[in-house]
Amino acid sequence: MREVGSEIASITPSSIERAARDLAGYLSPTPLQYSRAFTHKAGCHVHVKVESIQPIRAFKVRGALTKVMRLHPEKGSEGVVTASAGNHGQGVAYAAAAFKIPATVFVPETANQLKVEAIKRLGATVVQAGRNYNDAYLEAMRHQEEGGATFVHAFNDPDVIAGQGTIGVELLRDLDDFDTVLVPIGGGGLIGGIALYIKERRPKVRIIGVEPTGADGMHRSLKAGRVVTLERVNTIADGLAASAPGKLTLELAQRYVDDVVLVEDAEMLRAIRLLFEWEHLLAEPAGAAAMAALLYHYSPAPNERVVVILSGANVTDEVMIRALKSR
Amino acid sequence: MREVGSEIASITPSSIERAARDLAGYLSPTPLQYSRAFTHKAGCHVHVKVESIQPIRAFKVRGALTKVMRLHPEKGSEGVVTASAGNHGQGVAYAAAAFKIPATVFVPETANQLKVEAIKRLGATVVQAGRNYNDAYLEAMRHQEEGGATFVHAFNDPDVIAGQGTIGVELLRDLDDFDTVLVPIGGGGLIGGIALYIKERRPKVRIIGVEPTGADGMHRSLKAGRVVTLERVNTIADGLAASAPGKLTLELAQRYVDDVVLVEDAEMLRAIRLLFEWEHLLAEPAGAAAMAALLYHYSPAPNERVVVILSGANVTDEVMIRALKSR
Repeated sequence: MREVGSEIASITPSSIERAARDLAGYLSPTPLQYSRAFTHKAGCHVHVKVESIQPIRAFKVRGALTKVMRLHPEKGSEGVVTASAGNHGQGVAYAAAAFKIPATVFVPETANQLKVEAIKRLGATVVQAGRNYNDAYLEAMRHQEEGGATFVHAFNDPDVIAGQGTIGVELLRDLDDFDTVLVPIGGGGLIGGIALYIKERRPKVRIIGVEPTGADGMHRSLKAGRVVTLERVNTIADGLAASAPGKLTLELAQRYVDDVVLVEDAEMLRAIRLLFEWEHLLAEPAGAAAMAALLYHYSPAPNERVVVILSGANVTDEVMIRALKSR
Repeated sequence: MREVGSEIASITPSSIERAARDLAGYLSPTPLQYSRAFTHKAGCHVHVKVESIQPIRAFKVRGALTKVMRLHPEKGSEGVVTASAGNHGQGVAYAAAAFKIPATVFVPETANQLKVEAIKRLGATVVQAGRNYNDAYLEAMRHQEEGGATFVHAFNDPDVIAGQGTIGVELLRDLDDFDTVLVPIGGGGLIGGIALYIKERRPKVRIIGVEPTGADGMHRSLKAGRVVTLERVNTIADGLAASAPGKLTLELAQRYVDDVVLVEDAEMLRAIRLLFEWEHLLAEPAGAAAMAALLYHYSPAPNERVVVILSGANVTDEVMIRALKSR
């Protein structure tokens, strides 16, 4: 593995802009929509970046496509492998299908069946292995070592991070001036890419990360100054249930993120309901985390212009019904 | 009122293309997304036109903006008035706000409070008048006669129809070849605009309308060869609850629509659930009607390429929970 220092150096604003140009043939930019309702509620100007309308209903497709595009053609033809029963798995499957290369996605035996079917429909081979994510991850690594496929990490990868950073390119292009961006943190790839790009190009913008109280690996790692691995994670936001940031994403957060705030499950559920009732936007718990942070843990200045990243909408019936009934 | 013949003559493919160019400064084109899941289920290629991501979460903003843009500047400055507690009311309020002219929206006293607030947030004056839509409509007409504001009809208006027809422009641009479009019918403005444009430009495409069994005014009118007004409408799809088509929209349907199929409330609720579970797309009952028709009342040829118009997503908590629990 290369040193972290050299990996960070490979992610530059112009590398992210190149990713944005390369993605243009595969993805449409997502809408950035002004919300009168949340502006009224939050007491600041609220713009929502609607990543939930991506083909796989989550931003992850940006990073996965960028990774696959940047594989050497020979290496690429041997395919990709990953471990994820969630949005990253769908992103990798989607990217592999777009480039007509094989993909194998390892998922735990307990994975949600609707999500497994979605990955299969994208043409990937799904292997159910082990009882939890770690087992599936170990199986995926073994598969990579035996064959020629490239493992695609969900966040601790410069190309994946550059892909997620293309959201920053769209934000600077679509909105002349803004003060703050609220970004959910799982492993830290999304905020790493966005923060690097925006801070390098428009340093005055503040970047605030959002983690669940039950999966606050980045928050603790930033305090400790090193990667802290949680013994267990406990959050309704499966999209943010990482037990630790990566070395690379931690270093990006150290350099470029101004603050990290924590949100409770109940707050994410309420934010899902309000996004539905006021804006008729669908969000999964991870996707509603940044809005929950704005509503319940952030005190904006009057007239502050805030961008909220709605990162995804892959929510189950059960969680949606819970959210709609939450008060 | 001008003769219908002359009104139809004013809606031409090039007038619709002009509307599309004029709208480009105000609205982004909406995504047309291929659905692997519905393709698998329906046995034909399914593309979904996602109008639910429009700023007001419904296609209506196209027609309202087109109408407001085409008002003579002097006339426009006196403002617009309409009667609607639904998507059309929001569309007119949005268009008026975009052009900084006053809007007055008459709604029945029984109107859904969340929808009333959404219209108010857009800056329109909301007047609650009467116990049902007809009372609100009569009040709106009185208001128009007394003042100088222009009444914006929800569907029986050439400019409104041209605006809705811009969906057809996007479809022909985004998809090289397709066979069939399924379009929900309320008053008939949406299907009128789309059908005229597509049939004039690519005559082989089939246009199928979809109405609720409890609000089948267009279906009956087409059979009778004249406008038939239903004594009452009874459907969960408030967006399709028109008691009759207009003269203009009926004539457009007579010329350009190949068939109209009917769907039950329970089928629209199931389609809302499947759109949520398989595609994580939000739909109101009217928005799910075309998908319901595809799943339950349409027999596609193998490899037929079908476009389904998902017209809007303004669904209440209560209806969403019913849909998610429907099997």
